Amino acid sequence: MYKLLKELYPLCRSITGIEVNKTLNIIKNEIPINVKTIQSGTNVFDWKIPLEWNISDAYVKNSKGEKIIDFKDHNLHIVSYSEPINTNITYNELIKHIYTLKEYPDWIPYRTSYYKKDWGFCMKYNDFLKLDKNEIYEVHIDSSLKNGNLTYADLIIPGKVKKEILISCYICHPSMCSDSISGVVVATYLANYLLNKDNYYTYRFLFIPETIGSIAYLSLHIKELKENVIGGYVITCVGDEGKFTYLKTRKENQLVDKITLYTLEKNIESFNIRDFTKAGSDERQYNYPGVDLNIGSLMKSKYHDYPEYHTSADDLNFVSEQGLNETLNMYIKCIELFEINHYYKTNTICEPQLGKYGLYNNIGGECDKYNKDKIDGHLISKFLKYCDGEHDIIDVSIKLNITINMSKIIIEKLIKNELIKI
Amino acid sequence: MYKLLKELYPLCRSITGIEVNKTLNIIKNEIPINVKTIQSGTNVFDWKIPLEWNISDAYVKNSKGEKIIDFKDHNLHIVSYSEPINTNITYNELIKHIYTLKEYPDWIPYRTSYYKKDWGFCMKYNDFLKLDKNEIYEVHIDSSLKNGNLTYADLIIPGKVKKEILISCYICHPSMCSDSISGVVVATYLANYLLNKDNYYTYRFLFIPETIGSIAYLSLHIKELKENVIGGYVITCVGDEGKFTYLKTRKENQLVDKITLYTLEKNIESFNIRDFTKAGSDERQYNYPGVDLNIGSLMKSKYHDYPEYHTSADDLNFVSEQGLNETLNMYIKCIELFEINHYYKTNTICEPQLGKYGLYNNIGGECDKYNKDKIDGHLISKFLKYCDGEHDIIDVSIKLNITINMSKIIIEKLIKNELIKI
Amino acid sequence: MYKLLKELYPLCRSITGIEVNKTLNIIKNEIPINVKTIQSGTNVFDWKIPLEWNISDAYVKNSKGEKIIDFKDHNLHIVSYSEPINTNITYNELIKHIYTLKEYPDWIPYRTSYYKKDWGFCMKYNDFLKLDKNEIYEVHIDSSLKNGNLTYADLIIPGKVKKEILISCYICHPSMCSDSISGVVVATYLANYLLNKDNYYTYRFLFIPETIGSIAYLSLHIKELKENVIGGYVITCVGDEGKFTYLKTRKENQLVDKITLYTLEKNIESFNIRDFTKAGSDERQYNYPGVDLNIGSLMKSKYHDYPEYHTSADDLNFVSEQGLNETLNMYIKCIELFEINHYYKTNTICEPQLGKYGLYNNIGGECDKYNKDKIDGHLISKFLKYCDGEHDIIDVSIKLNITINMSKIIIEKLIKNELIKI
Repeated sequence: MYKLLKELYPLCRSITGIEVNKTLNIIKNEIPINVKTIQSGTNVFDWKIPLEWNISDAYVKNSKGEKIIDFKDHNLHIVSYSEPINTNITYNELIKHIYTLKEYPDWIPYRTSYYKKDWGFCMKYNDFLKLDKNEIYEVHIDSSLKNGNLTYADLIIPGKVKKEILISCYICHPSMCSDSISGVVVATYLANYLLNKDNYYTYRFLFIPETIGSIAYLSLHIKELKENVIGGYVITCVGDEGKFTYLKTRKENQLVDKITLYTLEKNIESFNIRDFTKAGSDERQYNYPGVDLNIGSLMKSKYHDYPEYHTSADDLNFVSEQGLNETLNMYIKCIELFEINHYYKTNTICEPQLGKYGLYNNIGGECDKYNKDKIDGHLISKFLKYCDGEHDIIDVSIKLNITINMSKIIIEKLIKNELIKI
Repeated sequence: MYKLLKELYPLCRSITGIEVNKTLNIIKNEIPINVKTIQSGTNVFDWKIPLEWNISDAYVKNSKGEKIIDFKDHNLHIVSYSEPINTNITYNELIKHIYTLKEYPDWIPYRTSYYKKDWGFCMKYNDFLKLDKNEIYEVHIDSSLKNGNLTYADLIIPGKVKKEILISCYICHPSMCSDSISGVVVATYLANYLLNKDNYYTYRFLFIPETIGSIAYLSLHIKELKENVIGGYVITCVGDEGKFTYLKTRKENQLVDKITLYTLEKNIESFNIRDFTKAGSDERQYNYPGVDLNIGSLMKSKYHDYPEYHTSADDLNFVSEQGLNETLNMYIKCIELFEINHYYKTNTICEPQLGKYGLYNNIGGECDKYNKDKIDGHLISKFLKYCDGEHDIIDVSIKLNITINMSKIIIEKLIKNELIKI
Repeated sequence: MYKLLKELYPLCRSITGIEVNKTLNIIKNEIPINVKTIQSGTNVFDWKIPLEWNISDAYVKNSKGEKIIDFKDHNLHIVSYSEPINTNITYNELIKHIYTLKEYPDWIPYRTSYYKKDWGFCMKYNDFLKLDKNEIYEVHIDSSLKNGNLTYADLIIPGKVKKEILISCYICHPSMCSDSISGVVVATYLANYLLNKDNYYTYRFLFIPETIGSIAYLSLHIKELKENVIGGYVITCVGDEGKFTYLKTRKENQLVDKITLYTLEKNIESFNIRDFTKAGSDERQYNYPGVDLNIGSLMKSKYHDYPEYHTSADDLNFVSEQGLNETLNMYIKCIELFEINHYYKTNTICEPQLGKYGLYNNIGGECDKYNKDKIDGHLISKFLKYCDGEHDIIDVSIKLNITINMSKIIIEKLIKNELIKI
C-alpha cells in the first residue's frame, strides 16, 4: 500500500483538474472503478459544480529574479483554485495573499479558495520572516479556470442482497499523505479484498472530491442510496501508527457504530471515540438530516487532532506500511462482522432434538453448565434461545460470553441443519 | 410587585365571597382579565359549587365583655366558611372549636371548613393558655352562607399559534403572603410582560379559588385545554428570598420540566426538585390522570417546607420585592425558552453552500475546529446537522456546548436565509 | 410436605413407565389432577414420544456370584432407559458402561440415555476402584422398552378471568429429593392453597416429565397457552434450607420477574439472581422464542450450583420440612401479589371529593404532608394520582414508599366507593 501511496503523493490534486484524472487512472490499474464526469455549472442541491482548475506553474520572484516561492518545489505553495495572475506588487500587497503557520514555522500550510475568485501562496513562517519589506515582487500564476468537468469514480461489488455498505474516500488533496490519499489506498485494497470473495452485502466504493463530490453523487443517487445503504465508512487519516479513532454517525447508535466499537473493543486495548459534532469530511453529507445513510469513520490520528494535519508535514514520513496495514486489517474485521451479524430466527417451536442432528451428547444428566470455549449441545442449545429475531450475533455473543468466531461456527452448524434462518 | 401584594394582603378572601371580587377588581386595574361567575349548586365533575360565604364580624367575649378573639384583629382568627352563630358556651364547649399551633405559640394557624357545616376560631397557642376554664364565653359570628356565586377570572393572550401555555394562581387565601397572593402578583406581572410583546404561543392566565376553581374551570374547558395546552405552571409561594424549588409534573419528563430544570441549572447554583408526590395545589387537577396538561410549579420556599406556611407568620415581612423579582425573572427566562425551543428542520438536502449566504469564511483549509463562543461557518454548519426535527434547541445547545443565546442568534441567521424552518 | 416427599422418594421414575403412574396417583390423593397419556411414537414438534421404559431388576455380578452393583440397593445405579441385557463381559468392556464421580467418590451419579439405545450403571468412585481388572462380569438388566405411553397430569383452577398463571414441575427423576420431587410437593401444596380460595387469575398446574413432557404439552395446547398465560414458574430444587435463587425469564423484565424480585427484596435480606442463560429445566421450552410464556423459576439452591445435584447425595437428608415451607410461603407471597398487582384507573375526571365518601378529614389547612404509615385523605389522594393505567400496584407502592399491604387496603376502600377500576 505504501508504494501506491508514494505514486499518488506528488500529484497536485484539487476538486477538479487533470491531476484528479491521473489519480483515478492509477487506482483503475488496481481495481475496476468506473470513472465519470459532471460538467461545470451543473446544479447539485444548493451548490453548483465549479469551473475546472488546472495549474502548470506559479512563483514569486524578487527583483533579482530569484524565485523565493516556487510551486515546483511543493504543491502546497499555491492556494488551491488560485486564479491566473502575472504582476509586480509591493511587499504590503503581497502579504495579503500569503499564508503561514507561526506555530510550526518550518511547515507549509494547505489553503484553498474554491468558491471565491482569489489567489494566494502558502509558505514556511521562517521563510516569510526573511522577505524584504522594500522589495517589489513579481507574482506569476499560470493556472486556468475553465468550463470543464468534475471527475469522480465509483465501484459497485454486487452481493447476495441489494442492501449495501458504502465506502467513501476523497481524491482532492494535493501532496499530503494521511489526510486523503491514505484513505484512497486503504479503500482500494479493501475493494480488492471484497472483489475476491462472495459477499452477503453489496459494496459501493466512491472516489470523489470532498464535499462537492459527495453532494454531487448524492444528488444523482440519493433515492437508491437511501433505499439500500445500511451503513458504511468514510476512510481518511489512516496511514500513521497512532491510536485508532472512531467517529460515530450522527444518530450515534447505528449498526456501523455497534459493529465498529465492538470490533475495536475486542481487538485493541485502547482507542478514541469522537461524536458527530467532530465530523469534518463527507460523513457530514451522508449523515445530513434526511439523508441519514449512517456513515461512520474509522481513522488513526484524526484530522484536527494531529498538528501535521493540513500541512507539508503530513508527508511520506508521517505514514507507513505498518500504519496502513493496521487500518486495512481492522476494516476487514469490521466488514467480516457486518457480513454475519444478522438477526437469526429458530425454525422449530420449542428446542429441536439436537441429538438427531449429532449436536448433542447422548448421555444425559451430566452437569450441563455450558463451557464458553467448547461447542457442545449445551452451548448450541443456549445459542438457539437467542435466535429470536431480536438479538443480532453481537448481542448473542455478549449474552453467552463467547467470541464472534465461536458464534460463527455455531451458526454454520445450525444453518446446515436448517434449524435457524435469517 | 410588593405594593400590589400589600394592597391585596388585608382582604379576607375565601373560595367565594365579596372579597374575592375585590381581589379580582384590583388585578383588573393591572391587566385586562375577564371576571366570570358560576352559581352555587352547579355540579362540576364529582363536586358541587358551594354556597357563597361572606363575613362581617366575629369575636369571642368573656363575661366581662372583653373580646378575647377578634376577627377584626386578623382575618385568620376565623375558620373559613364558619357558619353564623350567636351564643354563650362554656370553656369546654368553646375549645372544641379552637385551633392553635403548639410548636409556634405566637402564630395564628389557618383553617377552613368548606364542605362541612361548622364554625371555629384560630388563635395563638400562648393566648389559648390564658383562657379561663371557668368562664362562659359569648361567641358571635356574623357570617352568611347563601346561594350566590363562585367568582374567577381568566385572560387569554393570543400568540402566533393556538398551542398554549397555562399559568394558574389562586385567589382564595386570606391575609397570607407567599402562599397564594405572591403567585397572584407574579402572574399579573408576567401577563403584563407577555401583553407587551409578540408571542409564539398563546398564554392563558387563570385567577381562581384553589381546587374547586380549577375543577370548575376544567369542567367548562377541558376539551380545548387538552387540545391546546402544551404545559405551564401553577404560581404560588414565590415571594420570599429562599431557594427555588421546582415541583415536577406527574409524568415527570415533560417539556415544562425540561425547560424549567435547564433554565434553573444554567442560571443558579442550587435549587430543590420535588416530584409530583409532593404536589399540593391546582397542579393536582391539571395533571390528574386523563387530564394531563403537564403543569409544573416553580416556587421559592415550597408550601409544607417552611414553618410559616398556613400561619399568620406568612406575612408582609416574610416576602420582599427582591424575592418576587427573582421569581418573575426566572419565569420570564423559562417563557423565553419556551418561545424559541422548537424542533427545527433544514430546508436543504446536504449542507447548504454557506459561503453564498455570507455565513462561511471563503479561504478553506484552516483547522476548522469550531469555537463554541464564535459564530462562524463551522459552528453554523454543525448547528444545521441537528436541525433534524428530533433535537429541540435545548438538545442542540447541549450537544454543541453553546448557550441558548448563541443558538438564538444562529437560528435568526438561518431563518433569515430560509435554511431552516420549524 | 416432607412426609409426601418421603413417600415419593423411593420410586424409580423416568420419563415414562409404571412408577410415573404411581407418582401421579400419590399426587391425586392430594389434589384433583387429571392424568393423561400420549402414545409412544407420537410426533411432538421436532421430537417423538419414546417407547415406554420399565425395569424390574439389574445387577453386575463377579465370578463368585456376588452382586457388586445392585439396582435394588439404589435406583440411581441404573442409567435411565437402559435396554435389557444378560451377558458376561470383561472388565475393559464393562467400564465403558460405568459412570462415576471422581470428585465425590462416595456419591452415585445420575445418568440417562433416553434417545440412544444403550445401557449403563452408575456407582460410587470408591467402589469402582475396587473392581478386579481380571474378572469376567455378569451383567443383567431386566428392563423393557415397548410401545406404551407417556403419562402426565394437569390441573386447572378457574379464576375470575381467563388469563392464567402456569405452574410446572417434573415427575421424571428417580430417588433424588430437591431436584424434581421437592418441586412436585410444593406445587401440590400450592395448588391446594389456591383450590381453597377465590382467585382472580386462572391457575394451571402441570406434572410432566422434563423436556419431552413440556414439549408434548405445548404441542397440544400452545394456542390457548399463548393466548392466556401471563407468566408463571417452573418449581424445582426447593427443598433445602439454602438461599433463594431466582432464574429470570428469557425476556428478563416480565411481570413474573418484577413480582418475584420485588417479593424477595421486601421479604429477605439476600438472594441470588440468575439470568436465562443459566436455564436448565422446562422454562427452556416455555420461554423458547415464539413460545414466550414468560416463565421464571424460584428455587433454593439451584441445579448446577450445589454439588449434591444429580447424585445420590440429593437425598432425604439434603431437604427438610423447613426448607419446603420457606419455599411454599414465598410462592404464596408472589401469587398474592400477582392477584392484586393490576393497573387501576380512576373513575373521576379531576380528584373526587373524598370528604363525600368519608375518606377526608373535613377541616382543611393542616399541613398535608402525607404520612406513609397512616391511611388518610392525603395518602388516598396521592394514591389516586397514579391510578392512570400505567402504574401497577408495585409501581405505586414504590412511588409513595408504602407497603403492598397498605396499597391493598387503599384499593379496597377506593373500589368500594367505585372511585377506581381495573
